[in-house]
Parts: sequence; C-alpha cells; structure tokens
Amino acid sequence: MTQHTSSSSPIRVGIVGYGNLGRGVEAAIAKNPDMQVAGIYTRREPAQLKPLGQGVAVHAMGELMAHQDRLDVLILCGGSKDDLPVQSPQLAARFSLVDSFDTHARVPEHFAAVDAAARSGQTTALISAGWDPGMFSLNRLMGEALLPDGATYTFWGKGLSQGHSDAIRRVAGVAGGVQYTIPVDEAVERVRSGGRPELSTREKHRRECFVVLKEGADAEAVRREIVGMPHYFDQYDTTVHFIEADELAREHGAMPHGGFVIRSGTTSEQASQVIEYRLKLDSNPEFTASVLVAYARAVHRLQAMGQHGCKTVFDVAPGLLSPRSAEQLRADLL
Amino acid sequence: MTQHTSSSSPIRVGIVGYGNLGRGVEAAIAKNPDMQVAGIYTRREPAQLKPLGQGVAVHAMGELMAHQDRLDVLILCGGSKDDLPVQSPQLAARFSLVDSFDTHARVPEHFAAVDAAARSGQTTALISAGWDPGMFSLNRLMGEALLPDGATYTFWGKGLSQGHSDAIRRVAGVAGGVQYTIPVDEAVERVRSGGRPELSTREKHRRECFVVLKEGADAEAVRREIVGMPHYFDQYDTTVHFIEADELAREHGAMPHGGFVIRSGTTSEQASQVIEYRLKLDSNPEFTASVLVAYARAVHRLQAMGQHGCKTVFDVAPGLLSPRSAEQLRADLL
Repeated sequence: MTQHTSSSSPIRVGIVGYGNLGRGVEAAIAKNPDMQVAGIYTRREPAQLKPLGQGVAVHAMGELMAHQDRLDVLILCGGSKDDLPVQSPQLAARFSLVDSFDTHARVPEHFAAVDAAARSGQTTALISAGWDPGMFSLNRLMGEALLPDGATYTFWGKGLSQGHSDAIRRVAGVAGGVQYTIPVDEAVERVRSGGRPELSTREKHRRECFVVLKEGADAEAVRREIVGMPHYFDQYDTTVHFIEADELAREHGAMPHGGFVIRSGTTSEQASQVIEYRLKLDSNPEFTASVLVAYARAVHRLQAMGQHGCKTVFDVAPGLLSPRSAEQLRADLL
Repeated sequence: MTQHTSSSSPIRVGIVGYGNLGRGVEAAIAKNPDMQVAGIYTRREPAQLKPLGQGVAVHAMGELMAHQDRLDVLILCGGSKDDLPVQSPQLAARFSLVDSFDTHARVPEHFAAVDAAARSGQTTALISAGWDPGMFSLNRLMGEALLPDGATYTFWGKGLSQGHSDAIRRVAGVAGGVQYTIPVDEAVERVRSGGRPELSTREKHRRECFVVLKEGADAEAVRREIVGMPHYFDQYDTTVHFIEADELAREHGAMPHGGFVIRSGTTSEQASQVIEYRLKLDSNPEFTASVLVAYARAVHRLQAMGQHGCKTVFDVAPGLLSPRSAEQLRADLL
C-alpha cells in the first residue's frame, strides 16, 4: 500500500452507458494519461454514438461479457433507479468497477448485492462515487471524526436538480422547464460563523423554476400546482418564472451545481472550529465523472492488492486516487 | 477493513509532552468516549503539571519505555525542530504513534527514519498529522486527483503565526508581540471564481504585527527592522501596530488560525470546476490535537490489522478515523 508507481501500460477502462455522465467519463480519462478508454458499451445502436475521441470503439452492451480480458475496470454510467441495481451486481461478478449509485436509502441493500458478487468473482467494486454521495459523504465523515462535539450541515446549489426539473415538466400545461436549488445565504452564514442552528427545510434551501407554458395553459394554475407539489416543493419557498422556449434553450441548457458541507464544532468551551468543503461546478456530470475516474484508478489498484469485495469512498486511502507515487506525494503535497 | 465495530475497552493513549498541543489532545480525548488518556509523559517535574482531567496520571518521560503494556498508542506533542526527529523514530521501535512533524522539506528523511523503526518494531507510526501538514495536504492531493487539469492554491489565515511572532520578539527594542498572517481577499476571490492566476507571495498574504516596545525604544527603527526582515517579512506587505502590554495580553492571547485550499480546474473547454476546503479555527492547537486523536484511532486499527511501518494521512482510509462501524457510516453518511 505504500508504493504505487504507475506502470507503463495505461489502465483500460470500459464505459458502460453513454449519456451525459458517460461523455463526462470519456472527457475525464483524456485528462489522465495513465488511463485509456478501451471501449464504450451501449444499449443503443453502436453506430449512432459519436464519441468525443477519435477511434474510440463503441460496442453493443451484449458484447461486454466477452471482453473481460480487454478491460481492467468498468465505469458504470447508468441511472440509480433502474440500471445500477441490476448492472452493478451482475457485472461485479466478472469485472472490477465503479458506480455512482445515489439512492441514499437503498445503499445498504445495493452494497450487499454488489459485495456478494464481487467476493465471488474476486473483483473490487466501489459504489456511490461522485460528489453526493461521494466527496460530500467523505467530508461529512471527516467532520464528524475530527470534531465529534458538533453538527454537520449539507447545503446543495446553486444547481440544476434533474429530479425537480422532471417533476415540473410532468405538470399539465408545462411545455418545458428547469428547477434550481439554491442555498439560503443567511442559513449558510449562520452555520459558517460557528453557530449550530436548528434549521428547517424551508430555512436551508429555496427553489427557483423557469417554466415554458403550453399554448393556452393557465399560468396561475400551473404555478399553484408546482409550489404545492408534495415533497418536491411544498416545504420550500418556491419562485416560478414563466419564460419563452428560446430563453429556456439559450439560458438554461448548462448543468451547474455544487454546495457546501460544513461541520461546526467545539473543542473546548472557548474554542469553536468550523470546517467547510465547497464545490462550485459548471458541469455536474463532468465533475461526477472526474470523481468516478479517480476512484476507478484506486479500484484497479485495490483489486491488484487482493482487496476484493464492495467498497465505498470511506474505504479508499486517498493516495490510491493519485497517479503519483507515495514518495512523490509525500515530498510535494504533504 | 470493512468492519470496525468499537470494542468495549477504550483505546489507551499516552500523551508525550504537555504544552498547548498536549493539553489539546487531552481535551480532544475527553470528546471521544472510545479513547482514554492512560498517561501523560513529561520532561518537567511530573508533580508540577496540572492536567485538565481529574485523576490523570502524569509520569516522568523516563518511565515511558516501561509502560509498553499499558499503552495502545502514543500521541507525540513535541516540536518538529528538536523533539520529533529524535523521539518519533526512537519511540516507533516500541509503540504505535502519531506525530505532527511539520517541517515540510524534511518529511522524506523523517519518514525513512520512522519507517525503519516501525517495521523493526512491528508498530504503526503516522507522521505529519494536523491541518497543514494534514487536512490541507489531503485536500491538495484530492484536488489534484479529481481535477488533474488545474492549479492548487493554499492560503493561510487569518491566524497567529508562532514562527513570525517569535521573530519579531527577537528584534532589539521589542518587549512583546504577535504576528497575524492574513490572506489577501482579492487573491482568494480571483481563485475562487475559477481563474488560475499566477500570484506572487505578496499578492497572496499580508502580515500584521502588534508590538509592545521596551522603554526608550525607537518605534520607527523597530518597524523598519521588522518589515525588512529577510524571508519572514521582506516579501510581504507588513503593517506594524504599536500597542501597550495590557492590550497585548487582553486582545492577543488566543491562537486562532485557518485558511483555504482551493483547486481550480477544468474538465472541458466549457466547464470550470472549483473545490474549496476551508478551516476557521478559534484554537489552532486544539484543532491540531483533534486531528491527531482521530488518526491515533486509525493507527491503532492499522496496527491491529498488521499494517506496520510509517504512514501519512495519504495512506489512511477515511472510515478508519471514525468510531462508528462501516455499516453505520454507509447507512448514515454516504
């Protein structure tokens, strides 16, 4: 574990699924010379895909199992609802892999299924990489471990929420729209200044929607249905802006996101201590992809070290994420 | 590595050295029910020490070697200049331990000396824990691994610098004084907004001194000598305030510190991504101590797992820092 000099041949990565996240993974691997895209696997017609890189091979999903000896590690880029609960255990029996499973409540069962498969296949499979779960989880853990007498706050945004955008698009009379989650500045400042306030859902975040109406739709009725939608909006202060289709396309096509994990604690009566981790992301899928790629490097190493089974970000020594040797890291970054 | 349920008997910690850091370690252990102070070891007369906790045993340093079977892990609270280069290798031959060695340039040789001792003694010794080196190092590494196309910036402060305070107290005519290192807001904002500016030493930090003059001293001569001091002050914009001894005692007795590690990178031409880690500490020694205590827990576990030798924060899986089991962490924090 103390030596991880890069070998001369790059780590061969298979990208499974090629939506926004899969494209982000391809772009991220291009920034990491010790890794290469060995193949993209899709359920669509392979010839229809246009990879970013020239000469990148695209294969039908059905070919994946036959490519075991061409691939060191898979990065699974499907969805947490339908794809990963099936794919991750199935593929972990044959491949080391990383996924971004993000249904927090179902992590224990996903872990158990992947762990059984990976142990039987002597592979290493890391689930729930990304930024939340992922980097934010890591900072929640570290904050709690370093300042046991304290409170942890997670704020999300400003960022585009896919789930909430989908929800507004399902409202009758809505032709299109997006939703931004925005942390309430005052709440962030109260936490950052070392207090430990009790904050309600409404006090922590507000929601802002940009909606294009269908012809003849009743704007006020649409607004009321959005702001009253149970769970999605009813516990928040929500603002709805009605805009034209061209403005939606022009101004709201990007996928920014980010947020804060803040641990506020005390080490003695006199001393309050605040740890803050913040992400400000122009592209949510590209950053998530970058995290998956760094953890794919670690997974490949853990597999080579014989550490089989299911892992999470909590189980990975940070040095394993870097292409540099332990000596270089100690000399340059410690 | 996947299971670390807390055992029923607490981890027995020996505190070696009892200045500000040692007292901070004692206070931190009081916040961690799975650990206990098994003894404080000092070069001073043991009876002169007044531990924070009632009934805490204080021993002469010479007794330490005979207490091997009473102690699971040592936390070394001496200085990096004279104490740790001798103590850490010497004690690592017999004990698992954590130190806060912070002379960045001498890390490789310190690592080598401690590693040889720990391997021969089958102990686990983690060097350079704290926040810089320590948490900041970890965030430098993670930033680089997640955003390989980027630049890392470390800013320190606002905080009291012990080294610079010592330097001004050595100037002729100075009766007392403290120095604060302050990040330049404009530089922080430029980096935080996603740019990758080239920043000179002067552009990143400024220095502020509060100085009490000896009777009859020439204020302007003192000021000139401070601001022109090579390495310490000459490359910075430095402000010197002359104050009275009672104001120094009243207003400048605390040891606040903190700072930022910011990684600014791009994942594609369109997307700039910023990761920021920030500490805002009322008490530098108490926070450093809290980090040492969390890593002492990890070291004790690594030793039990047979992972002997010298380690740094780069080698420790985050889950090992927490008293909670891997299942609990996955269920609650992922």
